[in-house]
Amino acid sequence: MKNIESQNIPKLDGNFDKDLLQKAAKDFGTPLYVYDLDRIQERYAQMKAAFGGRKTMICYALKANSNLSVIKKLASLESGADCVSLGEIQRAILAGIPKYKIIYSGVGKQAFEIQEALRIGILFINVESKEEMLLVESCAQELGVPARISIRVNPDIDPQTHPYISTGLKENKFGVSIEEAKGMYLLAHHSKYLEPIGIHFHIGSQLTKLKPIAESARKIAQLAHSLLALKIEIKFFDIGGGIGITYSDETTINPYDYAQAILEELRGLDLTIICEPGRFIVGNSGVFLTKVLYQKMHQNKRFVIVDGAMNDLIRPSFYDAYHQIVPLNTESQELSSADVVGPICESGDYLGKNISLPSLQNGEVLAVLSAGAYGFSMASNYNSRPRCAEVAVENGAIRLVRKRECIEDLIVLEKDYL
Amino acid sequence: MKNIESQNIPKLDGNFDKDLLQKAAKDFGTPLYVYDLDRIQERYAQMKAAFGGRKTMICYALKANSNLSVIKKLASLESGADCVSLGEIQRAILAGIPKYKIIYSGVGKQAFEIQEALRIGILFINVESKEEMLLVESCAQELGVPARISIRVNPDIDPQTHPYISTGLKENKFGVSIEEAKGMYLLAHHSKYLEPIGIHFHIGSQLTKLKPIAESARKIAQLAHSLLALKIEIKFFDIGGGIGITYSDETTINPYDYAQAILEELRGLDLTIICEPGRFIVGNSGVFLTKVLYQKMHQNKRFVIVDGAMNDLIRPSFYDAYHQIVPLNTESQELSSADVVGPICESGDYLGKNISLPSLQNGEVLAVLSAGAYGFSMASNYNSRPRCAEVAVENGAIRLVRKRECIEDLIVLEKDYL
Repeated sequence: MKNIESQNIPKLDGNFDKDLLQKAAKDFGTPLYVYDLDRIQERYAQMKAAFGGRKTMICYALKANSNLSVIKKLASLESGADCVSLGEIQRAILAGIPKYKIIYSGVGKQAFEIQEALRIGILFINVESKEEMLLVESCAQELGVPARISIRVNPDIDPQTHPYISTGLKENKFGVSIEEAKGMYLLAHHSKYLEPIGIHFHIGSQLTKLKPIAESARKIAQLAHSLLALKIEIKFFDIGGGIGITYSDETTINPYDYAQAILEELRGLDLTIICEPGRFIVGNSGVFLTKVLYQKMHQNKRFVIVDGAMNDLIRPSFYDAYHQIVPLNTESQELSSADVVGPICESGDYLGKNISLPSLQNGEVLAVLSAGAYGFSMASNYNSRPRCAEVAVENGAIRLVRKRECIEDLIVLEKDYL
Repeated sequence: MKNIESQNIPKLDGNFDKDLLQKAAKDFGTPLYVYDLDRIQERYAQMKAAFGGRKTMICYALKANSNLSVIKKLASLESGADCVSLGEIQRAILAGIPKYKIIYSGVGKQAFEIQEALRIGILFINVESKEEMLLVESCAQELGVPARISIRVNPDIDPQTHPYISTGLKENKFGVSIEEAKGMYLLAHHSKYLEPIGIHFHIGSQLTKLKPIAESARKIAQLAHSLLALKIEIKFFDIGGGIGITYSDETTINPYDYAQAILEELRGLDLTIICEPGRFIVGNSGVFLTKVLYQKMHQNKRFVIVDGAMNDLIRPSFYDAYHQIVPLNTESQELSSADVVGPICESGDYLGKNISLPSLQNGEVLAVLSAGAYGFSMASNYNSRPRCAEVAVENGAIRLVRKRECIEDLIVLEKDYL
């Protein structure tokens, strides 16, 4: 067993403390997601403050964590919503986000979804192609109401993040080129059923470098200037989201610097900024709790087998993502490297590799940090595992926000066909 | 646009024909999984026949596809079940697999799951560590009935497959070494509450080479001989599963050669063989249907945006797996290379990269082949996308076997906590 004496057990994110998490695990069982709503409030406020007096709307990106109680908290802070499906729009409305603060993005919108978004009367639709714009136009014509749109422009800039979440290169499926966008704006401007009121870019997720964002903003601001010169009166400059968070010791983008860089590029443009943070708000505001079931040594390899698995949190195996893991019972002492693995019958089922951990007791709870974003929202029932419960902490109190699934929930849509 | 004139559109798997699939898409909508139960029957029969007169039990590995109607079909063929969770055991029983044909495997079994398996009275539990064996013993003692077990032995052989589904190397989390197994068998043999009746190995999934399987069987057969010499009367030789299938033009293992290789190593051992095929039975027996929504050219890159996504079929992005894609309307003509991508807001959301496709119409249905295994069973609700429906084809008739989810299904466990 290799000893890594120099390393310490990481600290818990934000306001979490070990006693509170122990209580959550005891009261609600494991595996379990725990969200800190106070921390969510802080992060929302940070982003809002960064843009100072400038007209800005923060539209929380639901895809990061779409639990209704998380969205409701953000609604109470006056957040808007960036939605990528009709399902997300319905969640946003149910949780209390006003329709005039909802944006609908995504490359694969279908006619019935567009119609429903228009019927609801959301703020605008981010269109991703000319074909889609024409579909939006025909849906609007059918309903007899003009559709407010924004066009997603692909600035062809390398965001320097994981290839799966990089979206701003011309080889990605997202948006249209600047040249194509110009033609589309002109077309929309002359359409009776389209109101081009926004311009949009989003170059990727978990961005830790400011420069690609600033460069994109510059390119898109130039386009905005030329649109205004053509009397196409756009009102919203939608800068997308994607600000990275710290999973271990990465240096990431400070919200203030981010806002300043954007504002710098927007000088002379009287547009309302729309910012769509997801991971930034919820990422470090959630932890995933899992219990040690078994421990194994295979020759020199240490395995800690836990009750949480890749069906609960797929980021480590899907994105090769690193999450810090903190034992809740054991204080820092002699540490050794271990793989923290789940019960699923695949070697790809791990929550962490080469994690420094003290010796542990079976039954002890581990906290997987920074699991508030792209955790539960990507969970599956693989291996017929019921999805875990989600709880929220607010003002020191813990409450259930999604019930743990049972086997009956898994088969409810199948059993009548047996 | 790069033309790949030499390539043809692939043929549909097995008994599928385009008209039938068109009908399925029309009647049940897309995205959609379609399973061919007749093909499942053929594949089951092939594996059963390969072992000829030898005492053999085929235990279908539910993790590949756990739809209740698929399991029921296999139950009607007298298949047993290899389960890796209590959820799978409950599915097996509900679908009509007799308890004495159920095996329970997996590295993370919990006390309540073991107790329930013992209470039900399944054939045996495959134990994966000494710790787990002791837990099984104490559960059995509590219930006052001895527990039938088998021990999963890790032969430390490289199966030459994707690292995520390779399980037979000592650096994997699965099973115990041969030396450790010996000690465990002796312990179990002397326990009042343990009945060691089987020996088990499983070195990985999607295996395309016979040699590592034969080598593993040889090592484990040697262990079986030494156990019998010690009067430890094991009855079952569980060879796991993992036989690969053809996704494009791979040469894989012929079931007859597979059986012969195993039988060769088992000479002189009067044991019942248990074989646990999953993908082999269902992989090529299912297709995933998806509709073209939009088409885009970004400079020289062709994108076909479809209504199916990585939440429906994660294999391409998770395992870098290749699935052939066949358009149902268009006959083979001049083809060009395209990425077939879904509506999810990630570049990792694709069903195929550089797929040769003719020019397509929006609304046209594409069949993603060989999607019967690890398709729906790994599906999620990412981006608040309802999971798609599943239908089965049998004797030319199509019927629903799992209803399409709606938004209400997604929030049912959350909305009471708002």
